[in-house]
Formats: sequence, C-alpha cells, structure tokens
Amino acid sequence: MIPRYARPAMTALWEPDSRFRIWFEIEAHALDAMANLGIVPKDAAAAVWARGAFDAARIDEIEAVTKHDVIAFLTNVAEHVGDEARFLHQGMTSSDVLDTCLAVQLARATDILLDDLDQLLAAIKRRAFEHKLTPTIGRSHGIHAEPVTFGLKLAQAYAEFSRARARLVAARAEIATCAISGAVGTFANIDPRVEAHVAAKMGLTVEPVSTQVIPRDRHAMYFATLAVIASSIERLATEVRHLQRTEVLEAEEYFSPGQKGSSAMPHKRNPVLTENLTGLARMVRAYAAPAMENVALWHERDISHSSVERYIGPDATITLDFALARMTGVVDKLLIYPDRMQANLDRMGGLVHSQRVLLALTQAGMSREDAYAAVQRNAMRVWESDGRLSLMQLLKDDADVSARLSDAEIEERFDLGYHFKHVDTIFDRVFGPA
Amino acid sequence: MIPRYARPAMTALWEPDSRFRIWFEIEAHALDAMANLGIVPKDAAAAVWARGAFDAARIDEIEAVTKHDVIAFLTNVAEHVGDEARFLHQGMTSSDVLDTCLAVQLARATDILLDDLDQLLAAIKRRAFEHKLTPTIGRSHGIHAEPVTFGLKLAQAYAEFSRARARLVAARAEIATCAISGAVGTFANIDPRVEAHVAAKMGLTVEPVSTQVIPRDRHAMYFATLAVIASSIERLATEVRHLQRTEVLEAEEYFSPGQKGSSAMPHKRNPVLTENLTGLARMVRAYAAPAMENVALWHERDISHSSVERYIGPDATITLDFALARMTGVVDKLLIYPDRMQANLDRMGGLVHSQRVLLALTQAGMSREDAYAAVQRNAMRVWESDGRLSLMQLLKDDADVSARLSDAEIEERFDLGYHFKHVDTIFDRVFGPA
Amino acid sequence: MIPRYARPAMTALWEPDSRFRIWFEIEAHALDAMANLGIVPKDAAAAVWARGAFDAARIDEIEAVTKHDVIAFLTNVAEHVGDEARFLHQGMTSSDVLDTCLAVQLARATDILLDDLDQLLAAIKRRAFEHKLTPTIGRSHGIHAEPVTFGLKLAQAYAEFSRARARLVAARAEIATCAISGAVGTFANIDPRVEAHVAAKMGLTVEPVSTQVIPRDRHAMYFATLAVIASSIERLATEVRHLQRTEVLEAEEYFSPGQKGSSAMPHKRNPVLTENLTGLARMVRAYAAPAMENVALWHERDISHSSVERYIGPDATITLDFALARMTGVVDKLLIYPDRMQANLDRMGGLVHSQRVLLALTQAGMSREDAYAAVQRNAMRVWESDGRLSLMQLLKDDADVSARLSDAEIEERFDLGYHFKHVDTIFDRVFGPA
Amino acid sequence: MIPRYARPAMTALWEPDSRFRIWFEIEAHALDAMANLGIVPKDAAAAVWARGAFDAARIDEIEAVTKHDVIAFLTNVAEHVGDEARFLHQGMTSSDVLDTCLAVQLARATDILLDDLDQLLAAIKRRAFEHKLTPTIGRSHGIHAEPVTFGLKLAQAYAEFSRARARLVAARAEIATCAISGAVGTFANIDPRVEAHVAAKMGLTVEPVSTQVIPRDRHAMYFATLAVIASSIERLATEVRHLQRTEVLEAEEYFSPGQKGSSAMPHKRNPVLTENLTGLARMVRAYAAPAMENVALWHERDISHSSVERYIGPDATITLDFALARMTGVVDKLLIYPDRMQANLDRMGGLVHSQRVLLALTQAGMSREDAYAAVQRNAMRVWESDGRLSLMQLLKDDADVSARLSDAEIEERFDLGYHFKHVDTIFDRVFGPA
Repeated sequence: MIPRYARPAMTALWEPDSRFRIWFEIEAHALDAMANLGIVPKDAAAAVWARGAFDAARIDEIEAVTKHDVIAFLTNVAEHVGDEARFLHQGMTSSDVLDTCLAVQLARATDILLDDLDQLLAAIKRRAFEHKLTPTIGRSHGIHAEPVTFGLKLAQAYAEFSRARARLVAARAEIATCAISGAVGTFANIDPRVEAHVAAKMGLTVEPVSTQVIPRDRHAMYFATLAVIASSIERLATEVRHLQRTEVLEAEEYFSPGQKGSSAMPHKRNPVLTENLTGLARMVRAYAAPAMENVALWHERDISHSSVERYIGPDATITLDFALARMTGVVDKLLIYPDRMQANLDRMGGLVHSQRVLLALTQAGMSREDAYAAVQRNAMRVWESDGRLSLMQLLKDDADVSARLSDAEIEERFDLGYHFKHVDTIFDRVFGPA
Repeated sequence: MIPRYARPAMTALWEPDSRFRIWFEIEAHALDAMANLGIVPKDAAAAVWARGAFDAARIDEIEAVTKHDVIAFLTNVAEHVGDEARFLHQGMTSSDVLDTCLAVQLARATDILLDDLDQLLAAIKRRAFEHKLTPTIGRSHGIHAEPVTFGLKLAQAYAEFSRARARLVAARAEIATCAISGAVGTFANIDPRVEAHVAAKMGLTVEPVSTQVIPRDRHAMYFATLAVIASSIERLATEVRHLQRTEVLEAEEYFSPGQKGSSAMPHKRNPVLTENLTGLARMVRAYAAPAMENVALWHERDISHSSVERYIGPDATITLDFALARMTGVVDKLLIYPDRMQANLDRMGGLVHSQRVLLALTQAGMSREDAYAAVQRNAMRVWESDGRLSLMQLLKDDADVSARLSDAEIEERFDLGYHFKHVDTIFDRVFGPA
Repeated sequence: MIPRYARPAMTALWEPDSRFRIWFEIEAHALDAMANLGIVPKDAAAAVWARGAFDAARIDEIEAVTKHDVIAFLTNVAEHVGDEARFLHQGMTSSDVLDTCLAVQLARATDILLDDLDQLLAAIKRRAFEHKLTPTIGRSHGIHAEPVTFGLKLAQAYAEFSRARARLVAARAEIATCAISGAVGTFANIDPRVEAHVAAKMGLTVEPVSTQVIPRDRHAMYFATLAVIASSIERLATEVRHLQRTEVLEAEEYFSPGQKGSSAMPHKRNPVLTENLTGLARMVRAYAAPAMENVALWHERDISHSSVERYIGPDATITLDFALARMTGVVDKLLIYPDRMQANLDRMGGLVHSQRVLLALTQAGMSREDAYAAVQRNAMRVWESDGRLSLMQLLKDDADVSARLSDAEIEERFDLGYHFKHVDTIFDRVFGPA
Repeated sequence: MIPRYARPAMTALWEPDSRFRIWFEIEAHALDAMANLGIVPKDAAAAVWARGAFDAARIDEIEAVTKHDVIAFLTNVAEHVGDEARFLHQGMTSSDVLDTCLAVQLARATDILLDDLDQLLAAIKRRAFEHKLTPTIGRSHGIHAEPVTFGLKLAQAYAEFSRARARLVAARAEIATCAISGAVGTFANIDPRVEAHVAAKMGLTVEPVSTQVIPRDRHAMYFATLAVIASSIERLATEVRHLQRTEVLEAEEYFSPGQKGSSAMPHKRNPVLTENLTGLARMVRAYAAPAMENVALWHERDISHSSVERYIGPDATITLDFALARMTGVVDKLLIYPDRMQANLDRMGGLVHSQRVLLALTQAGMSREDAYAAVQRNAMRVWESDGRLSLMQLLKDDADVSARLSDAEIEERFDLGYHFKHVDTIFDRVFGPA
C-alpha cells in the first residue's frame, strides 16, 4: 500500500482492527449458532458478546510466542471474556475464520469499488451529454479517419465501465462465501448449521464444499476481474494523454493555479494524472498472475496463498479504488476545447470525407477498384500538401470523377452533419432511451 | 498451435477456410439487409449467395500485392461473383468483418469448451459417487490432517469446474457481439439495421457502441476467464501428481501396456499426463496478459491487438480444449487404490484423531490451553516414533487425560465413520439432492 | 508459430528434422567418446556415423506405440544402422539428449537474433548520423519541452539495443550447456568425459550439476531477456507511431505504391508495422512468465516444463527474430520530415526556450521562485494563445524581466544551436569516438 | 511493503529520509562540480554542505501546494540554507535527481541482496558437505528413480544460487547509472562534467544517453532478474515442502518449542516457512511484468513508470531480501533424517537398480529391446507388490536373465556405492577443487 495512492475508507478495511473485529463477529456468531443448537451454554455466547474485546498490540505480543495468529487472537479475547471463552472456536479451524474474514473484506471492498464505478459512470455520462454533438476527428492508427463526436468517445467509455460494473458484481458473488467446515471441510466437529448462521449474519452465501479453505479459483477470478477493469482505466487515461499532446490539445487535465508542471520548464502543463493512472493500471494488472498461481494448492490446502493475499488483497483494492476516484476527477474537471477539435478536423483538407466520395462513385456506376484509385490519387496529393490542397477542389478538377459526379454532388459529400445522424441511436443503446 | 496439443474440431475453427467462410456469410448477410432496405438491388444479393466463392491460396496471392487481407478477399470473391460484387462491403470497414468474424470464432470455440467441461464434469461426478465413502487422509501443508473421502476430493473438483462452466458462459456472452458500424463506428454510411440483421443471422448480439472495432475489454475478460479455468486444471493435475508419488501411490494415471516410462528405468510409471497439463495451464494463463495489454488501443483503434489475437485466439482455445479433454481422460481412467489410502491413513498411529480428543477434553472441563498441551505432548511422541506408537494407548496412559476421559470415551474418539456423517450434505450441495 | 510472423532460417531450426539431426549428433558424439574410452567397440561408433539415418514420419509411427520420443528415435536409427546401434544411448537418459538438443537450438537461435540485432544497430546508426543535427522538439509527457535532434533520439535507441545485445550474449551463455549425466545426474552409468566430449563438439560448456535435466533457472533467465528486448522494440515502435500521428507527422513508415491503408478510406497511411511490433512485443513478453513457473520442478525433475517449451522455444525466438528484422526495415526506410519537425518546433511561440530565460534571470540575481513566476506568467499567455503570441516579445515587454535582462540578452536565450553543443559528446559516448 | 515480510536495513533504504538524504547529496555534489567549473560561487557550495538540511514533514506540506516533490524539497532546503540555495539545481531537471536517486537506492538494495545470497550460499555449502554422501532416492516425476546423495541436491541449489549471484551482479551494473543531463538530456544548461562528478561521488557510472530519464529497459532487466531469483527460491522451497510430506518425511523445517502448527490439530508440524516462500516468490515474479511495461515511455519520457516504481522498488527488494534471509534460516536449521532417507530408498524392493541390470544384460549380448522387456516384466511385479517382492530375487529366478548373468553378477548391480563414485567430481565442479 502506497499512502499517496490510497483513500481512507478502503485502507481502513484492511487495518488490523477491522480484521480482528470481523474475526470476533465470526466467532461470536458461530457461538450463537452453537448455543441455539444446544451444543454450548447460551450464557457463554452472551458473555462473549458482552465482554468480548481485543487489542491488536497484545495479539502481536502473543503471536510472537505462538507463531499462530488465530490462536493469539483467541488467547487475547479469552483474557477479556474469561472462562466462557473456552467455548469459542470449538470444532473450527483457523481457516474458517481467516477465509470467511477475507470474504467479508473483499465483499466490502467491492462495495466501495462499485460506488466508485457509479461515480465514474455519472461523471462520464454528464460530460457525454454535454458534448453529444461536439464534432471531433475520429482516428484509427493515430491517423485522421472520419468525424465522430466527443460525446461518442465518452459513450464508449460509459459502455465499457458499465461492463466493468457488471463484471464486478459477478466477481463479488464469486468471493462472498462463508466456510465454517473444520479442519478438512468435513464438518466432523461442527454442525453445518453453524456455517449457515454465520453466512447469513455476515452477508455471505455458504461455500458448497470447502477443504479447510475456500477454493482459490474464486479469488483468481476476482483479481483477474480487477485487472481487466484496470485495463479499461488505462484505455481512457491513454485517450486523455493523447488529446493533451501539444500538437493535438483537444482536452486537458484540470490544472490548479499553484501547480508546477516542471521544475525546469515553467510553461509545461502535463497530463500527469492520466500518466499516473496508466502506471497504476499496470500494478493492478500485475496482481492477477499471483492470484492465479494461488489456485493449485496442495491437497486439501497449503498456505502459500496467504502471503500473496497479504499483498494483493489490500494493494489491488486500494489502488483500484484510488484509480477509479482519480479517473472520476479527471473526467469531471476535464478541460475540453471544441474549437481546437474543429481546427484539427479542418486541417487535413477534407480528407476525412474521402470514403463518402468513394461510395458515391461506386453508386454512380464506377467499379470499386477504379473508384478507389481515383479517390486515392487525389487524396495522396492532399496528404502530401499537409492539408494545404483541398480534396473537394481536386476532385472537381479530376476528369474521371467529374464524369460521374457534378460539383454539387461532390460538395454534398463534404457535409459534417451527415456523420452524426445516428448519434441518438447509439446514445439510446448506451444510456437507455431518453 | 502445437499439433500434439490440438484436436481437430477446434483447430478447424481457426483455419483460413473457416475464417473466409464466416467473412463471406457476414458480407452476404449484410448485403441481404441492404437489399431489404432498398439500398442495393435484390439481384445483387442473390448473385452473391449463388455464385459466391473464394480460394485461400488466391487470396494470399492478392494480399501479397495489396497488403490488406479484406480487400484481397473481396477481390477474390468478385472474381467469382462478377459485377454484382461491387455492392459488397458498401459503407463497411474491414474491422466490421474481422471483429464480427472473431466473435463468431470465439463463440464457436466456447461452445466446444463448454462441451469439454460437460464431459469433464460427467467423468468427475461418476468417479465421485463411485468413491463417495472411500476413506482417505486429508492433508494440509502436505501433512496428514484428518480423514476425508476420495469422493469429497472429487466433489470439490466438480464444484470448481461447475464454477468454471458458469464463468465460461458469461465470458461467451462478453465476446459474442456484432459490429457493422463503419469506419469510426458512426454508421455514417451504413444503416444500423444491417448490423442488427447480421447479428441475428450469425447468432450474436449487437455491440452497443463500437469505434471501428469491438472494444477489447471484452476479449481481455474472455482470455482471463480461460486463464482461471486453466488454473483449476492445474489444481486437479497437481492433486493427481501428488497421489501418484512413490511414497503416496493412492492413485495412478492409466498406464497402457506398450507405454515406456523411461528409456533408462523400466519400472517407472510416471504421471506424465498431469505434468503435461500443469505445463499447458501455464501457457493458457500466459495468454491473459497480452489480452489485457490489448485493451488500451489508441483513440478509435489501432491494430496492435491484431497480431496478439492471431496467436492467442487459436493457441488459448486449442490448448484449453486439449487440456480439458486430456483431464477428462485422466479422471475417467484414473487407477484408484483404496487399500493404499487406508494404509496411509493408518500409518500415523492415530494422530488424525487428535482434534477429537482435544475437544472431548475441553468438553470435559479442561481449559483449551491445558487440553492442547496434553494432546500435543502425546501426539509428538507418536510423530517422533514414525507411527509406531499408538496415540490411543498413550492417551489412555496419560494421567491428565485419563482423569477426564475413560478408556471407552477415548476409544470412541478414534471412530473413522464419525468424520463422514456430513458427506451426504456436501454431495447434495454440490450435485443437487439425490 | 504464426507463418506471417516467421522467417525461414529461424523456423527451420525448430522443425523435426533439425531436432533429430541434433539428437543424432549428440548420440553419435557420445558413442565416439565411449569408444575412445574403450567402453564400446570403435567399429560401433564408425558404423553409426556411416549408416546413421532417421525419418521423421517413421519416428512418429513408432512413438504412437511407445509414447516415448527418444526411444522411438533410437528404434528408427537402429533400423538403419543395424546391430551396432545397441551401443547407442548406453548409460544415458532421454533428457541428456533432449536438454542438450534444446541448448543447441537456443544457442543457434540466439546467433540469429544477435545477427538481427547487429543489422538493427547498423540501420539505427546510419540514420542517427544522417540526422545527427536535425532539430526536433523533445517531448516529456507528450508535451513540448526543449529542442533535441532526431539523431539523439536514434542514439538513445542505439544505446538501448546495444544493451539488448550484451544481455543476449549473457543469456546465450546461460543456456548453452551440455548435460550427459544419466538418470539422476550422478554419472552412475556414464563417464563424465563423455559429457565433456559432446559439449566440446556441440559448442557448449559442461553443466556443472544436472539432475537428469539442465536446471530451468537458465531458461527462465533466457526468456526473460527476450522479453526485455521485446519491450525495447515496443519503445521504438511507439516512438514511430507517435511521430506518424496526423497532427505530428514528423516521420512515416515507408508506404509501398500498391499498398492500401484502409478498405474504406483511401487517404490513410497507417503505421501498421510498428503497431504490429507493439503487439508482437506483448507476445514475447508473455512467454517469460511460464518460463519462470518452469523453474520449480519437483525433486530431480518433472516434465511440466516440456509442453511449455514446445510453445515458447519456437514462438519466442521466431517472433523476436521477425520483430527485429521488421524493426530494421522500418528504421532503414523510415521517411523522415525535417521541415515538419521544424514547423512543430516553431509552433509554440518560443515556449521551449523558457528554461533558459529562467536561468538567465536567476543568474541576474532574481530568486528562483520570482524568476519561475515571471517566466510562467508569460509562458501561460503564449500557451493559451495556441502559439500565436511570442514568448520573446512578451518577456521584453515584462517590466520585471526587462529590469534584469536587456533585449539582446533575452534574444540570445532563443538560440536553437545552444541546445546542441553537446551532441558530439553524446554521440562519442554511444558510438565511440569518431 | 508488508511489515511481517520486511527487514529493517532494506526497509530503511526506502524511507523518505533516506531518499531526501540522497537527493541532498546529489544536489550538493552537483553544486561542488559547478563551483569547481567556476559556474557558481564556491561559497555557495560550502554553504549548502554546511547548513543543508531538510524535514520530511515540511516537504510534504509544501508539496501539498506545489504538487511537485523536487520543488518542495528544494524550497525546504532553501529554508535552511538561505540565499545561496538559489544556485542549487541550476540547469538540472527533477528526473536528474529522482532517477539518480533511484539508481543509488537500487544499487544499495542490491548490495544487501548480494550479502543475503552470500549467506544463503554459505549455509547451503555447509549442509551440502555435511551430507555429501548421505544416500537418498532421486526422483523424477515424483517417482523413485535412482540413488543420489542429499549433498548432491544441495550442490545443485548451490550452483543455482551462484548463478543467481552472478545475474544480480550484472543487474546491479545495469541500474547503477547517473544522469544529470537536463530537461531532455542534451546538457543544454549543464556541463556533462557535473554528471561525471556526481556519478563518481555516488558510486555510479555515467548514463551514456538519457532523455530526461534513465531508460527503463535497465530497470526491466533488473526486476526480471529478481523474478528469476525468486523462482529459484521457489524451487528450493518446493523441494523442502516435498521432503516434509508425511509419507516422505526426509527433512523438516526447524520447529521451535512454543510453536503451534494448527489451532485444531496439535500433532501438526507444517512446512510453513517454505510454503510462505512459495507465495513470496509469486509476488517478486509478478513485479517483473509492470517493469517491462514501463519501458515504452512516450517520446523523451512520460511519468507512467513512476507510480509503478513506488510499488515495486520497495516491494520487490524488501520481499526478496526477506525471502533470501528466511531461506537461509530454513537451510541452516533444516532437520535432516538420513535414516528415513534410507528407509525410503529400501522400500521399492530394489527397483532403483533396474537400469544397471538392463545395461549388464545389454553388455552380455542381449538386444536392448529384449533386455528392456526382461527387466520391465520383473520390475512390474515388484512395483505391483508395493515393494514386498525383491527385484534381485526375481531376476535370479528369471530364466532369460540367469542365462546371461550369474547370481553374483546380478548382486553386484545392487551396490549403492556404485552410484556415488562421481560425487567428488561434481562437488569439485560446483564448489571448486578441495
């Protein structure tokens, strides 16, 4: 966890006190269930809830001797509860507590991430409608292609993060399971109804079959999903970085008055937030690989996954939470320059309309190959003039073209509005009917 | 694609003829839609279906000149169809064909993989019920823990591959979309109804917003899902490899009469299929990373994803298909040795029952700490004797223990059946009620 | 292996005939050594060299029965050699042949890659000197910073690929080892002098300690090195892609006359080679992960690495060979536009000189903070004018600045040549003294 | 950074005070060089060394306003030094400080790692000589193969970590470079001799060509090297985990008296340290991928690498330092059970000697195929008897065998010492001549 890339609510989830509190609740709910089943005295359960407490520093102290965290925790709780604490953890194994706790932490972390995504989606939607019909050049291969609107760019981002949200909901269901099934998952010393009770109380579903541990394919799928979401962040960040290039400059990250872009070059206004997001995406993506290597535990379990999860549990969720929030800020405050978009659109001498002319020639009876050749030879002259020649004029002057199309027919192919007639259709698909 | 790790049906999907056939169908269906909309003559569509043909070698020849695969394909089709071919591809862009084709290929590949999973699940289920109550030692950390049944091991595998199946269904929905939206996704020169028609005919849904290309977060999620499934294969393969170790030998891969395990050591029977599956899992996993790096295309698209997909599209699906089928064979024919399982269970002098004694002592009023110490000191003597001492006898001889538990009460804690009383419950959860 | 991303020499290395030829040489050289040591008859060795032959199809046939490739090979060789073949492979194990063969293949593949790198370095060097003093804007964060020369960009690439070359030489030494040490590496049935003889004949060094197999940390290091080299290809490819953007257009990939950039847009000239290289880099990078997972083989060896190497051995080397050759072509034929570089340099109204003014003000006694503020406020006006205002003029008109610097002193800070005075120094460092 | 997997010396390297101290030294040495060149007053340099100081908390405060860390640092230093501070950082850019600082930190981190490796090598060597001739079964595929010695296993580990050491020395040279070259690496405003002076003082070499930043292929190679070393740790950890399995139990991690293996099962002694190392290896390996993605910075630089390095710089080095130290402890205190090794060796009824018999039969004139068949049919009977039948006796009773070999000749093939005659040779290769 890197403090500068962390926000308090998500970070708090992963602090020792949060973990121990969840452990306590799991143990106490399990005791309730056992008391209801007549396995332990009802008084014991009441006593644990009444006097149950723990202290992270004291637990560390005990663990230094026992080298076992759950035993250290139970010992410390017993110091507060007294004799009734001996009923705690009966028939359970450490992983029952640890794995169910991780499920609770990841589920809660996911709730924060879902909220982050909702805010990002809202910001994208607002800006998308604001620029629904702002013309800008569409680019393939970084080369001018045909006109789009800036709203369409954002509609694509909205659709992509909507998919991210749906994936995250599915990923949450993957990991939100509870296992209280004993040393090798057979419920040898614990009633399956204890598991059902704890699951209900902690907001989880029951793990159908556990083997001391909850199977790690669930977590692999979870972290893989975060990695894909991070990749979508990288895509939008890359778009902003491109738009802010000096030569393009169609949009800029908001630049606060006191901010300095460079210690050496006072004029610089750099897309540092989206560059940073690009790096953070690399990190979240990197955490998927060890999560996948964690799946093949030996026999009923080994503990190789544990150290991995101590890193990636917090690091992946804290980093993604920060990244989503930062991306929301970038979108929300993005400086958008429609004039510059129009200027860039205009600079290629009308080349972006070449396909429409190609189609008109085909429809006027020219073979596709001939039409392609006719348009390309004129387009190449415009290209080589760096936009100083006008494609429309060259086409009018081209005998092969003017034999098929009148000047008016050529002019009609250079209408920008023509390209935007289906923007409403796309917006309806993405945002729902108005 | 490595021939020895490939099966014909999946491989055929990725051969040039399959691809060109799908291209042809996409183009011809699009032409139908345009004819229905009155944009092109109905005769043209009929002519294309009637005379449409292509030849992979001729396409290669043309591509060597044009350096553009879709143009080469269209040129070759025109050689067969004649003049009416000029109506093909109107208002479309290459990616409309390429990306929709990839969607069809991946969807069909997924159908094969789903069938593979069904066969694997069936094999696991059959063996699970066969060994539902076959006792075997459960192991955590590779160390004997408490008894389980071999059926429970397989029930866990069944549950894991059931999740794999559900994930694969979701992943199929991610990638089964159709985009026929033109050069930058605006439908400038093509009616959105063409896209809807092609989608319906090709068994896809409509991509809500494309930007010449179908967004690659979909494919990243798809390949990440395959990677997680491969990790589950690795888990089951690792289990078999462990069981076949000389010292464990509770199960073995089927060994055919003519097979030689080693050129030097005639007695060897090695778990080579599951070792091979372990390696194949590494490969399928590796393909997730480049798929994720493909997401952040520049602006409306660049073509960096294309070369990646030429590798991982076939390699990931062909390898996973082969791996699932091989795993099904391994499970189906696995030699399972219940006697050896029982022998291994017995060899630790009853240590596997230590927890039950611990609980009995606690319930008899001893503090958890004292009970733990009493059991541990005797367990350690058994452990150090390499299973020659009997835990039951040592406990009967221990004054602290016998003060709390009678010999009969101690003996009762060594009943194996005690551990299996919830096997039915777990089987019902995993396989559904009998 | 994807045929379109493969070149013949490298591909041939990985074909069955190449592999079997190397196997044959290893076995025959081993037999020579044994004959020299008096272990087998000299006639036998002579007979093997004289009549030794093999046929890939026949080997496949035999392997279908034995399920063991080396035994199949030896059986086939024996069919040609006759009775003397029984002396072959004595005391050896399959891995002695397989691993030593892989070492030979990887060493030869590396020789091709080194040659590729030499050609790439030569192309970069030629273009670097050609444009040693061609001014172009240096960019950080995609934003104009200060002037550099195009030669300096290429000098950096030269230095980076020189490091790549040195790493590849080291990686070659890692994997070029020979192990002929028997079933578990003890030389129980074979004399270590056989290993030394084969190593010398095959151009390898002796593996100090093998365990039936050559340890896979060597191969992990090898493929990791290829992955880093691929990342450097991605860097240079990304540079070209940026330079070819419509708005930048300072360089372009060579565009052959018959080439079509887009089936829809005839004017397009896309950086498809470098986009392709970006994708290929992702693939070569992906192969490092499974190579690293191959290291932790079980005990003296398992065979999980083998399937991985069947993929990545050919795929990583063939792809990197192709990518290096393609990159050499891109650099060699790159269209470079110095006029456009100058135009881009000029467009920001002199902002690139801001730091020099800042320094001059500091040296004239202004505090760093005040100087930074004075320059930044004028720079911001130029920035917001989109390069229409001139920084030089604004500074002359700024009272705080003109109080410290005369007009001549300000003008002197806008000299482009000032930035290039150390280009020779850097070229000497990179290419050696002239 | 996870505190439980971190050691103080390495952690301290990455704390803010260490970083700021290195920044200060770089700036002050640069000022010395400028003073020596007569560019700034000698008094200024003296004043900076005399009064130079900084305070991490104050720097954070200033950075909150300026959003630029190096400017915040310089501002704070100026608060201590006074007016002379204005000469600091002249002609330099932030990356000159940041990248050179990272080089110093990574170089120092590497020195710690090299020391860790030396201690690990020493521990392995001591145990290797201790068990140079301790017989144990060699296993391929987890199946008994032929005898080795425990010392040979450790000799292989020694050779592998010796390679790790050599790689780390090379990786250190990769990243130990100094760049003080200004905004785009042209030395426009700073003399190259300043760079040379700082490099010498900080123990670095000069970066031949930088572009504001030190090229990131260097760091990619560095972190890839750590990843390969981590994979070797995983290999040795996996060996220990296998040896400690209940059924094998040839070695165990040291188990301290107070330690509890399981909260539920008092008898458990689990290989938790090596399982933990397996997980840590996954993490160190994961950090290589983002380091490789960092290479392709845009143009002269972007800042996407920075966030990645804030994670992986500390996390990879701290984790590997901890892992190497933990592995040293495991090796140093490993409980090794020669009796159990012998018992395991004996349990397969002499099957491990099958190859020697095969060779003897071949040398006695039987064809390889017949000899293989003769040995295999007897070996299979032993195998199926679970070691209760004796291979030696069966062979004596086999007519085909006894026709070729006398009982004495058969017996001679079952001599264990035969396998160890070249142990000295291998030890000499690995550890040098005695």
